[in-house]
This record gives sequence, structure tokens and C-alpha cells, in this order.
Amino acid sequence: MISGTEIKTIPVIRTPRDMQEWSRAKRKEGRTIGCAPTMGALHEGHLSLIRRSASECDETIVTIFVNPTQFAPGEDLEKYPRNEESDLILAGEAGATIAYCPSAEVMYTPDASTWVIEDNMTGIMCGESRPTHFRGVTTVVAKLFNACLPDRAYFGQKDYQQLLVIKRMVSDLDFPVEIVSCPIVRERDGLAMSSRNKYLSADERSDAVILKNALDAACDAVNKGERNPRELERIARTLIETVRTSGIDYVEVRDAEDLSVVDEIDRPVVLALAVLFGETRLIDNVIIYPAKESM
Amino acid sequence: MISGTEIKTIPVIRTPRDMQEWSRAKRKEGRTIGCAPTMGALHEGHLSLIRRSASECDETIVTIFVNPTQFAPGEDLEKYPRNEESDLILAGEAGATIAYCPSAEVMYTPDASTWVIEDNMTGIMCGESRPTHFRGVTTVVAKLFNACLPDRAYFGQKDYQQLLVIKRMVSDLDFPVEIVSCPIVRERDGLAMSSRNKYLSADERSDAVILKNALDAACDAVNKGERNPRELERIARTLIETVRTSGIDYVEVRDAEDLSVVDEIDRPVVLALAVLFGETRLIDNVIIYPAKESM
Repeated sequence: MISGTEIKTIPVIRTPRDMQEWSRAKRKEGRTIGCAPTMGALHEGHLSLIRRSASECDETIVTIFVNPTQFAPGEDLEKYPRNEESDLILAGEAGATIAYCPSAEVMYTPDASTWVIEDNMTGIMCGESRPTHFRGVTTVVAKLFNACLPDRAYFGQKDYQQLLVIKRMVSDLDFPVEIVSCPIVRERDGLAMSSRNKYLSADERSDAVILKNALDAACDAVNKGERNPRELERIARTLIETVRTSGIDYVEVRDAEDLSVVDEIDRPVVLALAVLFGETRLIDNVIIYPAKESM
Repeated sequence: MISGTEIKTIPVIRTPRDMQEWSRAKRKEGRTIGCAPTMGALHEGHLSLIRRSASECDETIVTIFVNPTQFAPGEDLEKYPRNEESDLILAGEAGATIAYCPSAEVMYTPDASTWVIEDNMTGIMCGESRPTHFRGVTTVVAKLFNACLPDRAYFGQKDYQQLLVIKRMVSDLDFPVEIVSCPIVRERDGLAMSSRNKYLSADERSDAVILKNALDAACDAVNKGERNPRELERIARTLIETVRTSGIDYVEVRDAEDLSVVDEIDRPVVLALAVLFGETRLIDNVIIYPAKESM
């Protein structure tokens, strides 16, 4: 056997009950469990979560589930990229020891009627244009946690609002899970990695680099002393408007802890944005830590 | 030491983190965990849950928490009976090995914003007069499960709608918990045990026996061939109206599985009711299994 040509595959579990049984057996052996929830179409962003988990936990579960309840009618549920086979190879190479890949039918029975909702941070930003998105996210993440029973779960900062909402849920509902947030992984030219980047035409792809430039320009302004969040939003928006987009969904500066409105940048803030290129909606953000004023 | 005078006390845990640590250690030893969630003021109904758990599980957690989020303003949150010391003795005698007694401050931080909601069965019956009640119940039960990490949880059938809502939540959110439903425990004269029975005056207490009589009368009618649910409701209501109440909240026959409306008793149904005696709202119910018609 030539190990160089060996393809590392990982076992796949498809029901919550089997997943729970696996995790409980591992826990009984004293092994710690990390979990990286994904919708598949794995890219370096996802793989960074899996690698981080593999470095910190004895076992790493990658979950692959294109969750219908976080898509609204008319969104890209049907065309969302799916390739389980290559995802499993990539996840295994990155250090995942097992995959949880339930079907939509297993996850949602026709009479399902329970939701996990977060009330405070989900009506703004992405929640404004996608009003049912976050209850889909919180509900499915609660289900994934109950199936995988992880010690730690790894989420990317690219979906920053999602990250905060999930942290809130974990704290409010006493889930025994530590949420680990991982940095945004970017293409060489700065575009944040996303499974949706595949939708972009060549022109859209090169235009989309403006998002990172807009975030950088805002950071520069803060470094030069700007403390007005509305001015940062204006700087970013103006730059984005130099390319052809199908619309800016939002560009907002908010408190980095709880997404509350800030009128002055006197604490860590997030500059977050969502912009349409063709039919593709991309999000990105940066956390800005203002330097302490000298006394 | 004279064992006859020995009072059996059980340890008390007051935070989710400590509770999780305890449960995870027990699970690692291979011990099974049962949980009996209560609001304290333990009576024979609660004790029957604890005894059942103690007979089926290696460890039994009794949770004692008067959950503010399932009371509406103006309800009896403040006057709800509390006596932790005697509850702990009773629970220990019934077989509980530990108690989880968090404070309201530990359970709900001021910025808590996550709810578990059930959409289908919570707008009717008790949910109609208590519109925020069930989201309080589902949320706190999710929290208690995440803290106690039980294999099984024991609930009384007296709160029948609550029982179904919790079963639904467990199924929808993939909680790794088996819900065990336990029969209603009654006083000698038939009144269903309830912590709220303490509120009743002597007259109200004797009038309240009518609830069990009303349920029995409806069962008798079904045994004699009655198949019209509206007629059962009329029979029960008419009997209740022979005593002095402060109002009948509802008397309803519904499908015993999902609380859907039934027009004919051709499957198991629940006859459930809520009636006010003075300021005290009492609930009761019976499951009616119609005999198979002879062919």
C-alpha cells in the first residue's frame, strides 16, 4: 500500500441517536469532543475550524447539513453547493474524526413545531433582510449540539452576528458547550472565503475585493483618530459604490459585544456589511479596537 | 446514632456549571441519571416522579425552581409556596440523590434574550389564558436538561398540555432525554394533587372535588357509547356549574397525541379542564380510550 495515494475517509453518522451514542461512548472514555458545524462545500475557512478543533480536542466532529430553515423562500437553498464526498476527504485531512450528515427529513419532521429564538440581536443587520434566518440558525445549532454533545464548538468570525447570537443562546440556555470563535480566512486578494464565492462571475469576483478594501479603509481612519461610527460607514459605503454592485444591504458599525448602536468609537466595535454582487449576497466584517487615548 | 431519628438530607447544587460537572462525572462512571423537575412545595405527585426515577435510574436529580418566566404579571409568583428545607428532606426520602436549586438570578441574567418556543400546541387551552406560560416552560426545561444532562426526565400527566409540549420540544430539538409520563396522583376524595391546593378555603376545597366527578361522568358517558366530544364537554361543564366557581377557564376534549380538535371520539382523547375556585386556578384531565366498536 502506498500511503501517498491513500485517501483518508472518515465515518459518517446520519441520525441524532447514533451521533449521541457515539459521543457518549467517547465521553465515557474520557475523550474531549470538538465540533465544527458547516453547510458543506468546505473551504479553507471551514478547514481552519476543523484544524483548530483537532489541535484542541481528542475527537472532532464535522457536521455537514444545508439547513433549509435558515433559507427564506427565493434564497439559494436549491443551488447551494453540495459535494459530500470531497467534503469528507477534506475534513478528514484537516483532522476531523467523524462526520455528522443528517438529511433534511431526519432533521425536520413535518410536524416539527419548536424553535429556538433570540430576541435582541436578530432583527438587525442580516436579520433585517433575512427575518427568519437566525431562528433557523439557533434552532439547528441547538439540534446539532444535542446530537454531537461537544465540549467545544468552532465558529468563524465571518458570520459575526451569527457567532454572537449563538454565544448568547449557549449562555441563555446553559448549553455545556464552549464556543470558540476563529478568525476570518481570506483569499490572497482579501476576499473572505465563502461557499457562495463560487456563484460570482469573473467581473463580480474582482469587484468583490472592494469589501475588504472598504473594511481596511475604515480601520485606517480609526487609526488616524476617527471616532465617529457614521463616518466609518460613509467611508466604507463610498468605496463600495465605486464598483458595480446590485445593492448594499447594510454597512453598520455596532458594539462588538452585543451589536448595540454606538455613537462614538470608544470601545471595540464591529464594522459589518452585506453587499449583493449579481444575485450573490456576500458578508464581511472587521472588529475595530480603538487605541486608548493618551492621558 | 439512632437511625430512626436520622434525617436524610441530600446535597444541593446551585449553578448550571456545577450541575453539569456532577452529571458528567456520574455519566463517566456509567451511572444513569433521572431528573424530576419541580417548582418545590413537594406533594405526593412530585414524590411519585422521584420514586419512579429512583427505581429506574442510578441517580435522581430533583430540580426545585419556581420559574418566574412561566408566571404572567398578576399571577401567583410571589405567593407560590416555597420551603426548600422540607422539600429536600421529602425528596431525599423518596430517593433523590441530589437537588438542583438555582436562584432566579443564576437562571436569568438581565440580558437573557433566548427563548425556546413551541408553535403548534401552546396557543390553546392553558396557553389561551396564559399566553406567555409555555415559552417559559419550554425555555426553563431546556435549561434544566442542559444543566442536569439526564437520561430520563419524569413529568406528571396532571399538566398534560405541558407534557405534550415538552415531548414535542425534546423530539424537535433532539434532546438526548427520554420523557417519562407519570399518572396523576389524587387526594382520597379525588382532587388532583397540586401545590396550589393550599390556597383553597375549606369551602373551595370541598367544591373542587367536582372536577374529578366531572371527568368521571364524561368517562362513564363514553363507556355507555357517547362519541360526541361536545356532549362530553357539556356533561363536565354542567356538573362543574353545580358548585360555586369563579369561572370555568376551559373544558375541552382534544386528540390525546397532539391536542388537535376532534369531532368524534374514535381515538384516544384527553378531556382537560381549568377552573377557578376563588383566585385559585386548578387544572385536571383524563385520557379517554374509546372501546373498539364490535364489528
